[in-house]
Amino acid sequence: MLYGHGDDAFRYGDKVKMNFSTKVYQGADLSDLKTHLMRHFEVVGHYPEPEPRELERLLAAQLGVPESTLMVTNGATEAIYLVAQLYKGWASVIPQPTFNEYEDACKAFDHLISYEMTDELDVLPEKRLYWLCNPNNPTGNVLLKSLLNHIIRQNPRYVYVLDQSYADYTLSPMLEPVEMTDCYNLLLIRSLSKKYCIPGLRLGYIFSSPIIIDRLRQIRQPWTVNALAIEAGKYLVENDPTMIPDLRAYLAEAQRLRERLSAISGVMVMNTHTHFMLVNIDFGNTQHLKKWLVDNHGILIRDASNFRGLDNHCFSVTAQTPEEDDALVEAIQKYKALC
Amino acid sequence: MLYGHGDDAFRYGDKVKMNFSTKVYQGADLSDLKTHLMRHFEVVGHYPEPEPRELERLLAAQLGVPESTLMVTNGATEAIYLVAQLYKGWASVIPQPTFNEYEDACKAFDHLISYEMTDELDVLPEKRLYWLCNPNNPTGNVLLKSLLNHIIRQNPRYVYVLDQSYADYTLSPMLEPVEMTDCYNLLLIRSLSKKYCIPGLRLGYIFSSPIIIDRLRQIRQPWTVNALAIEAGKYLVENDPTMIPDLRAYLAEAQRLRERLSAISGVMVMNTHTHFMLVNIDFGNTQHLKKWLVDNHGILIRDASNFRGLDNHCFSVTAQTPEEDDALVEAIQKYKALC
Repeated sequence: MLYGHGDDAFRYGDKVKMNFSTKVYQGADLSDLKTHLMRHFEVVGHYPEPEPRELERLLAAQLGVPESTLMVTNGATEAIYLVAQLYKGWASVIPQPTFNEYEDACKAFDHLISYEMTDELDVLPEKRLYWLCNPNNPTGNVLLKSLLNHIIRQNPRYVYVLDQSYADYTLSPMLEPVEMTDCYNLLLIRSLSKKYCIPGLRLGYIFSSPIIIDRLRQIRQPWTVNALAIEAGKYLVENDPTMIPDLRAYLAEAQRLRERLSAISGVMVMNTHTHFMLVNIDFGNTQHLKKWLVDNHGILIRDASNFRGLDNHCFSVTAQTPEEDDALVEAIQKYKALC
Repeated sequence: MLYGHGDDAFRYGDKVKMNFSTKVYQGADLSDLKTHLMRHFEVVGHYPEPEPRELERLLAAQLGVPESTLMVTNGATEAIYLVAQLYKGWASVIPQPTFNEYEDACKAFDHLISYEMTDELDVLPEKRLYWLCNPNNPTGNVLLKSLLNHIIRQNPRYVYVLDQSYADYTLSPMLEPVEMTDCYNLLLIRSLSKKYCIPGLRLGYIFSSPIIIDRLRQIRQPWTVNALAIEAGKYLVENDPTMIPDLRAYLAEAQRLRERLSAISGVMVMNTHTHFMLVNIDFGNTQHLKKWLVDNHGILIRDASNFRGLDNHCFSVTAQTPEEDDALVEAIQKYKALC
């Protein structure tokens, strides 16, 4: 595995007071979930289902698709690695910068990797996967739904892995599983952990054609999703609580943060259609800034220098409350004054 | 993955009153663990450590070995698959009958598999793994510690995978990690889920040489062990509660069950050095018996016919309370009378 993931608050003990590094909404009310899991705590004393089939049934009902098109995984990460394993030895096109796990998973299973959409495509083998993260981590960019739909359907000879882990953190239209049940070259990955703000519990899923899902089932390990995660998933999918009370207001706050950061001279922030954003500074460097922010302000940012194509002037942040966002802006202004 | 695992109580809803299929002790008091997890429920709102390093440190202290020799996994299953992946393409010797996951994992990573210890060994490639389950699932057989130690150390050119998941369910001496830190051809797998009676939470570990552990870390996925499992593991390893109050009495009860079952004519039970045992019947068949026991007595047994080399006259059971064990014996006597 790679080193240098986001949300590494565990490294800092109690020092982190404001966590801009996690891309999961921090204000969710998880008290009902807690009550439910306590009531069903006896599940820890038994093996979980080898595959979380009951949860898959509930999710299929929520999404309006056949059960045979869904596989629930131990976070989106298990989904990514299973896809890479299923297509081992294929060519993978992974436009950069994006979530590093695609590359790591593809390398583990001997893919021929191209980082560009254009240059090398003429010479790449036809057995080809395209990995698309939408909204894209770490840029916050969102591809137009109609364009994505067109590309996938017009190129049935290629396989598209569309990671929509942050689908619930944007107002831009997303390709929905129910619209794609007639599509045989798509693997759509989503994250229940992110939707329901429980990244600690690790719940993701793959939607695809029944034939592909069946092949994935043949290579998966049993019992990867633990009993409390399954119990939480069943409760959340059945009740479908709204974890982000006002997404529109939250994304407006993200835009306000972006504008305030951009107003600092020497700071450039990419356009974003979601709650996180990629920032470039022309003063200091991000390793130093990250350490300085934790030490002096209890603020944790995501050092983005380990994304391919980015350097040590790049970091990403996720919008928090207006007060916290203002604290971040002011801290970066202070840091700049020191450089 | 394979189908037909044990502890499939989830298939039967409320029908199962006595579960002889799980190999984890059913009488453990998990109330302190529950209290602890409720107190730390906020961990579900954050990503877990990509690798459970803090838990590994605590475990290293408990076992008296360096941290660099340990890797905590999402159950012993993740350990088994990672080992198979690390040695992909090697030859694997898997004496039968044993836990089916070794074979399934080895097949997923293109191993050349031999099921015999003797016949084919002269022609097997030298890059060779031996998979040994001790105590062995499903037979309950235990290999002599001194013999195992001798075999492993006398054959440094082979790699030994020693799965001691049931180490805490036998009085026979086990090879301990602290005794094997000078050994470079051993991967020792253990199960915290089984030791602490929390199979729903999925916690296992691999002990090996630092070089092998480091190579395993390079291929593992991040975040496979979820936040509640890590929190539970830290609590349990630090406090090390005794989950089976009187192991000697429990194993004596297992022997009593074995004797009572063996006393039924047409029933043969293998010798066991642990709490579960393999049973052969010369009447009816195990699929039918299993269904009949659930339907008529709320009793769940482990159909063992899908173990390589066993047939549909084989099942395994794990000792429960004396009353439950007597109920099992009487139910099987009734079943026999019907055949």
